[in-house]
Parts: sequence; structure tokens; C-alpha cells
Amino acid sequence: MSAGKFQSFHPPQRTLMGPGPSDVNPRVLEALSRPTIGHLDPMFIKMMDELKEMLRYAFQTRNEVTIPISAPGSAGMETAFVNLVEPGDKVIVCCNGVFGKRMVENVQRCGGEAIIVEDPWGRAVDPAKVEAALKANPQAKILAFVHAETSTGALTDAATLAALAHQYDCLTIVDTVTSLAGVPLKVDEWQLDAVYSGTQKCLSCIPGLSPVTFNERAMTKIKNRKTKVQSWFMDMNLMLGYWDGGKRAYHHTAPINPLYGLHEALVILSEEGLENSWARHRTQHLALKAGLDELGLELVVPEPERLPQLNAIRIPAGVDDAPVRKKLLDVYNLEIGAGLGESAGKLWRIGLMGYSANSRNVLYCLSALKTVL
Amino acid sequence: MSAGKFQSFHPPQRTLMGPGPSDVNPRVLEALSRPTIGHLDPMFIKMMDELKEMLRYAFQTRNEVTIPISAPGSAGMETAFVNLVEPGDKVIVCCNGVFGKRMVENVQRCGGEAIIVEDPWGRAVDPAKVEAALKANPQAKILAFVHAETSTGALTDAATLAALAHQYDCLTIVDTVTSLAGVPLKVDEWQLDAVYSGTQKCLSCIPGLSPVTFNERAMTKIKNRKTKVQSWFMDMNLMLGYWDGGKRAYHHTAPINPLYGLHEALVILSEEGLENSWARHRTQHLALKAGLDELGLELVVPEPERLPQLNAIRIPAGVDDAPVRKKLLDVYNLEIGAGLGESAGKLWRIGLMGYSANSRNVLYCLSALKTVL
Repeated sequence: MSAGKFQSFHPPQRTLMGPGPSDVNPRVLEALSRPTIGHLDPMFIKMMDELKEMLRYAFQTRNEVTIPISAPGSAGMETAFVNLVEPGDKVIVCCNGVFGKRMVENVQRCGGEAIIVEDPWGRAVDPAKVEAALKANPQAKILAFVHAETSTGALTDAATLAALAHQYDCLTIVDTVTSLAGVPLKVDEWQLDAVYSGTQKCLSCIPGLSPVTFNERAMTKIKNRKTKVQSWFMDMNLMLGYWDGGKRAYHHTAPINPLYGLHEALVILSEEGLENSWARHRTQHLALKAGLDELGLELVVPEPERLPQLNAIRIPAGVDDAPVRKKLLDVYNLEIGAGLGESAGKLWRIGLMGYSANSRNVLYCLSALKTVL
Repeated sequence: MSAGKFQSFHPPQRTLMGPGPSDVNPRVLEALSRPTIGHLDPMFIKMMDELKEMLRYAFQTRNEVTIPISAPGSAGMETAFVNLVEPGDKVIVCCNGVFGKRMVENVQRCGGEAIIVEDPWGRAVDPAKVEAALKANPQAKILAFVHAETSTGALTDAATLAALAHQYDCLTIVDTVTSLAGVPLKVDEWQLDAVYSGTQKCLSCIPGLSPVTFNERAMTKIKNRKTKVQSWFMDMNLMLGYWDGGKRAYHHTAPINPLYGLHEALVILSEEGLENSWARHRTQHLALKAGLDELGLELVVPEPERLPQLNAIRIPAGVDDAPVRKKLLDVYNLEIGAGLGESAGKLWRIGLMGYSANSRNVLYCLSALKTVL
């Protein structure tokens, strides 16, 4: 078997305004190329400790258990489910887009029973339906929902749902992949129990890591499991020994350089300040919205439930989805997102996440769209 | 909750001669910082196709299913087990170090029954014991073993074990985390069925990805499972749709920049040539061995079973483990590995992996050791 003729890959310089990855801050890209050190090196452990502290700030929590999982957001989701769901557990799952459906799949693969609360795609989760489900299923142990649905751009009221869940003695699993750093997210104030996110959205880091935070209630349930966590790689008990700077018990080998990138992204966030980051996303969203209005393009999600960082637009009648996106990519090096699942071909998703949420991107995107349409 | 005062992290420049990560080639570090593009971008898909082709070369296989898992080697291990083991399956697991033990843990968490074949730490797996176990367990479906034990530096004869397994109608799961690109590994010629590896050893890429290759026999077993794969993230059926350039069905978001790094590492390997890479590891190992002899330091593994890329040394009587490693790190910026598990405190592990396998590292390590001891 011969080696073949391959050359270094030099990617084009795109403008990333899809559902993620977002444009990565050049400081983060530079951090990725810093010299690799060992994962048990005292300097690395110091970096990990800072990273955990900065993640606590981003999540607005004091949870001791706040770490990045060494794998993408979908593994963060699975980490929450495999640790908290035991075979036979009833889990109420809110479905208003692709990621709610994926949660159902996770519950079932853990041997749990998923009770589905459905809402239309493009709308927030309806607390009244959730309360009805909680009432109808007194044995339910967990309520799972997506804070910011990346497939549609709908923002759900996490504080209200968490309060309901606790009223009915349920823990919450909350997907904050797209919300972290883009809209207010207050893990402690809202008492969210097990929360996972991603790095490639409003943190403007590369994809491949999943920050998670688990509170005492969640950790108590995990420590009192009757069965072992089915995943060795995602077992929180093992992961904690690894991320404890004092113990540093070998589990896996952490992805050193991507963690440099996340560290830098969090330094940038702490310099800007969370509130300023939320405000910037909102400001740029309003600018985009004004431009879309002028172009006669309509947002799918009604105003109060709209995410600033993910703008789902109805594709106008008579316009073909793929050729428009192809032209934006080929001619303008501009990526916007297609619809996912049942909304494929029906909508575009314009992301304004992290470093991508700036005036240059907004004006460029509007001009390019105008020319292409 | 305030932002705290954090600054960019600038790691020291270490020389990495532990069990991994190894020194990363500067070309790989540079590749990491290239501009991020979308994971559905046609340019990215082209890069993925090249990556798969180059991995086939590294593994010496024509297996269609040859991809990097978006998580570290331990997730590659789990991917092999969750896909191939169904509840109730008997799996013969060879244990001659830490990673065999981890395989047992994986079998059990999949609901399988592990039949353990034990060999002393620091020795290869004994084919006679394996044959006895295969004979005694006619219902066994899988034989799992580690080609190159990172915890001890022992090389096992994978071709012989695979032939035995097939004779007794078993599939093989083979850990090649430390062997890939460091010693001969011929997946097709040896008929290994499900094989996983890591990127941070002899490929000299960063940690965080796990190349795997599955042959037709393995894929047939997966496609005929009676139960769903318990992990959504690691389900090969879903992953294949994602890594198929034609379909590119959304599964997770691939870690874009680390994959640039792996692509570059594989370009470097194809430039050098596999045989040359194997020979270089052997040459540097012999140079190290000669120097260790002069220092009176003894290798743990007997000659024919010795890995060139991982040299386990008995800590001399009267010498304290930790202070020596600390001095090497603090004064010489040189990392060597400690013993793992039952060999903690008894041995050091000197890695000569990938970019670390060069004369400068060997001579530097020997001089530093001489000074410190």
C-alpha cells in the first residue's frame, strides 16, 4: 500500500455565519499553536484550574464540578444523560427542534423512558405543557430541555422550567450549547442541575470541547446510582479524579492545545464581560433584523422567543435554497446555515455568535444576500 | 459573580519523552492555527476524504470504514466495544498492563462478560494462553488485546493472535494507540477486525482524536446487532453517514482545527514513508538503549518483546522516583513518564515517539539523566 500524493491543507478564509462553528477569534487560533506540554505537567494543571474558574464565570455558577469534556457538544449531552439516567428512569423531554429529539434518543439508549412534550419548531417550550406532563407523571425523575434551540433559533425560559421541575421533584438537564455567552444564562440563580454547552458557538473557540457544570443535587444522584455509568469515557466519577488538580488521577489524555484555545476564549470573555457580550449579540441582532426587514426577509421565531445569536429566516417563495448558499460560499466566502431536519429547504440560519457578532459581518452578510437574491 | 483576573496562558517549551503526548511537529502546530471553516464546507469534506485515505496508508488497510473519532484514544477504545459487544456477549480480554484492564471495564459496561487472560506486566501476551482460553470458551465472540502496551512497553504479536481468534470464530478488537507509525502494523495482512489508535503518540499530532478502522467482518456484526449501540455519540452507524463525503449527514460538529493538525501529521508521515518511520524509531531506541546501558539502567521488557517507542526502565535501588522526574522537568524542561497502576514508583517510561524519536532528544535525555542521577 503506497503513501499516495498528499499536500498540506490550506483552508480558505471564510466568514462563518451559520449555526456554528462561528468565526474563531485570531487570538484563539494563535493559542492553539502554542507548544504542547504533558497533560500531567504542573503548568497544565494550573491552566486547567484557571479554565474551570473561568467556566464558572461563563456559566454564572459556583459549582465545583465545572469542566470541559474532551469531546464535542453531543458528547456533553450524552455525558449528562448517561450519568443521570438509570435504566427504567422516566425522563420528560421537551421537543421543539432537532436537539430535543436527540435528547429522546439519549434517554432511550440509557434504558430510560422518555415522555415527550412537543412544541412547534420555531417556538419556545411551553411551560404549561411541561407542568401538565410533570403532573401526569409523578414518577418522572428528570426534566430535559434545550435553552437555545440551534435548529430554529428559539429561546426557552429556563428559569421557569427549572422552578417547575423542582416543584415536582425532578432534576433538570439543560442544553446551553448555543446560549452560553450569547444570552443571559444563570446556572445558580435559575438552579439548573446538569448543564452542558459547546465551544464553537458564542465562545468563538474551535469545535470539539463541551463545557459542563453539575450542581450538588446532580452529583448526589450520580453518586447514589445503583448501576455503573454505561460509558467509561463519560463517567463523571472518573472524570472528576482527572480534573481535580490535587489528585490528577489518569483517566484519558486531555486534548492539550484545544484547551489552550478554550482558555484564551474565556480570557477574552472575561475581558469583555458577560453582560457586554450579551449586549453585543443583541445589538448586532437588531442591526441584522433591520437589514432583513429592508430585504423583505422574515424571521421564523416570534419576537419574545427570538435568539439574537441564531436567526432563522423563511426562504422566500420561488427561491431555491442550495444555489443561494452555494453562491454565498463560492463568491463571497460566506457561510450561512441550512435548515435541519423537518425545516430543511424551508429556512436559512444566520448565526451571529461570539466573534462573528460584529458590524462588519452583519453588513457584509446583508450586502451579499441582497446581491445574490 | 465577577470575571476574575486571568491572563493568556503561555506554556513552557518542554521536551516530551513520556508515554504521550510526544513532541508535536511544528508543522502540525502551525496547521492548528489555520482559519476555521464549517464542518459541512465542501473544502472541509475534501480534506476529510484525504484524511481517510492517509489513515488507510498508516494502518495499511483498504477498509472503507477508516476515520478519526472526534475524541481521545479512550473514546476510540469505547467506540470499538460499544459497537461490537452486545449484552451477554463473551469477550476474551488479554491483560498485561493498564489498557487491558480498561478493556475489561469496557466489556462489562456494555453488559458483556469478560474472560481474562493474564500475563505479567512487562511481557507480551502469550498466544498459548490465548488459545487455551479460546478452546475453553467456544461461545466467545471477540478477542481483545493491546498491540503495544503503553503502561509497560511490551509488544504483542498481533498477527498470531488474530489468526488464532479467527480459527475459533472470534473477531478481534486491537488497541494500536502506541504502535501506529512506530512499529510495523498491517491491519489487512494480519486481518485485524476493529482497530483503534491515538494521535498523540507516534503520529506526533496533539491528543484528542482517535483514528479507527473496521473491516467488513466487524461492520457486518455491527449492522446485524439485535440492540441499539448504547452510545449515541459513538454509534458507528451514525458516524458513517457523517464521514461519508457523499451523504455528510449531520451527526456532531467535527473538531475542525485538530483535524487540520492530523491531516498535516499524516502528510508528514506519507513524506517520510511508514517503513522509514518504523526504522527511525528502532534506530533511536538502539541509541537510547546503548546510553542506558552505560548508565547502568535496565529495561523492564525482554529484548524480543520490547517496543522501540516506549522504554520502561527499572528505577535503580535507592533512587526516589518523583524528585528525579521533578528535577528533569524543572531544570531541563524534560518530561519522562512515571509508572502506571501497579508499576507506579517502580519504573520510568521514556517515550521515543514520532517527532520525539530523534538524536537530539536521545542525547539530551541521556545527558540529563546522567546529571540528575
